[in-house]
Amino acid sequence: MIARRGEAVRQAVLMAALAELAEGGYAAFAIENVAARAGVHKTTVYRRWPDRESLLTDAVLERAAFDFELPDTGDIDADLRVWVQRLADWLTGPSGAPLVAMLRSDAARLPAVVEAKTRFFAHRAMVLSQRLESAVDRDQLPTGTDPLTFLATLVAPLYLNLLVLDRDLTPDHCDRSVHVALTAARANLLG
Amino acid sequence: MIARRGEAVRQAVLMAALAELAEGGYAAFAIENVAARAGVHKTTVYRRWPDRESLLTDAVLERAAFDFELPDTGDIDADLRVWVQRLADWLTGPSGAPLVAMLRSDAARLPAVVEAKTRFFAHRAMVLSQRLESAVDRDQLPTGTDPLTFLATLVAPLYLNLLVLDRDLTPDHCDRSVHVALTAARANLLG
Repeated sequence: MIARRGEAVRQAVLMAALAELAEGGYAAFAIENVAARAGVHKTTVYRRWPDRESLLTDAVLERAAFDFELPDTGDIDADLRVWVQRLADWLTGPSGAPLVAMLRSDAARLPAVVEAKTRFFAHRAMVLSQRLESAVDRDQLPTGTDPLTFLATLVAPLYLNLLVLDRDLTPDHCDRSVHVALTAARANLLG
Repeated sequence: MIARRGEAVRQAVLMAALAELAEGGYAAFAIENVAARAGVHKTTVYRRWPDRESLLTDAVLERAAFDFELPDTGDIDADLRVWVQRLADWLTGPSGAPLVAMLRSDAARLPAVVEAKTRFFAHRAMVLSQRLESAVDRDQLPTGTDPLTFLATLVAPLYLNLLVLDRDLTPDHCDRSVHVALTAARANLLG
């Protein structure tokens, strides 16, 4: 084992915890395996995290801080396509995929996971809200669109593919989600 | 304990298994608890199902046989509103809710659960496909709508509410899903 500084060890353990969960699920999740994967002694893990719930809680909250920028080029259609593609890349990449796996495991019941999800959505709805307002100002969207309803319509097909249909997220899926949400908003269905 | 005939016992155990899973998740799922909930001796359960995977597999496949009719009154908008409301009632009722809970647990990894989901969607897409064709014949929809894409658009917001946002399914959610999917189909976005 290589001696590493505190923060590097912490990050290695948190990443290993997410990877372990993604691979084996929550029922089989064991701190010993996380330690082995991170290349540290299990007492190093236990010293900071007395149980698997506290370890996964930290791992999730750490990742929940991640954010992807919603551009404002003046073209709401193009900007949303970029944003949704970034979301899709994140959801299927090294940071997001373990979180998605968590939603498909018993860990979905952990209060920290529920809180992280709520924060995720509230934050994205806030970012989106500002961008939708500037689109309304440019007459690219009608007034009265509810940001949370718009967000739910926009991302629902992505989560369906990942959580229910076990399908990859293709660029076509992402672009279609954007077209559908904007078309619905312009038909005043998302108020 | 009351003596019951084979099929009644089987149904009681399968229902108890789903209820137990919905309440406690997969990690804590124990055949002893299922037996207690069903009011049978645990050896009665073990005689038919040697492990919890085989028990949950049977429970899921039994429920996957359920179906809800898609009416054909000649009005595709009204018929889909009825169908989606039926789906929502089922997903949140005594049969569907445990299956939704399973998707949020480690049991989502069981091959039987994956197979049941695939069958569910394929069957519904087939039913929907016939109904969409008759709507095209009546000029209520353009040709070229893909049934599986339409279905995914239609139900994605329901699953997002249940699996990610932890929200109830209101009649407004259901009606909006139908409006959004039909509006998208009529804009030729679901081909």
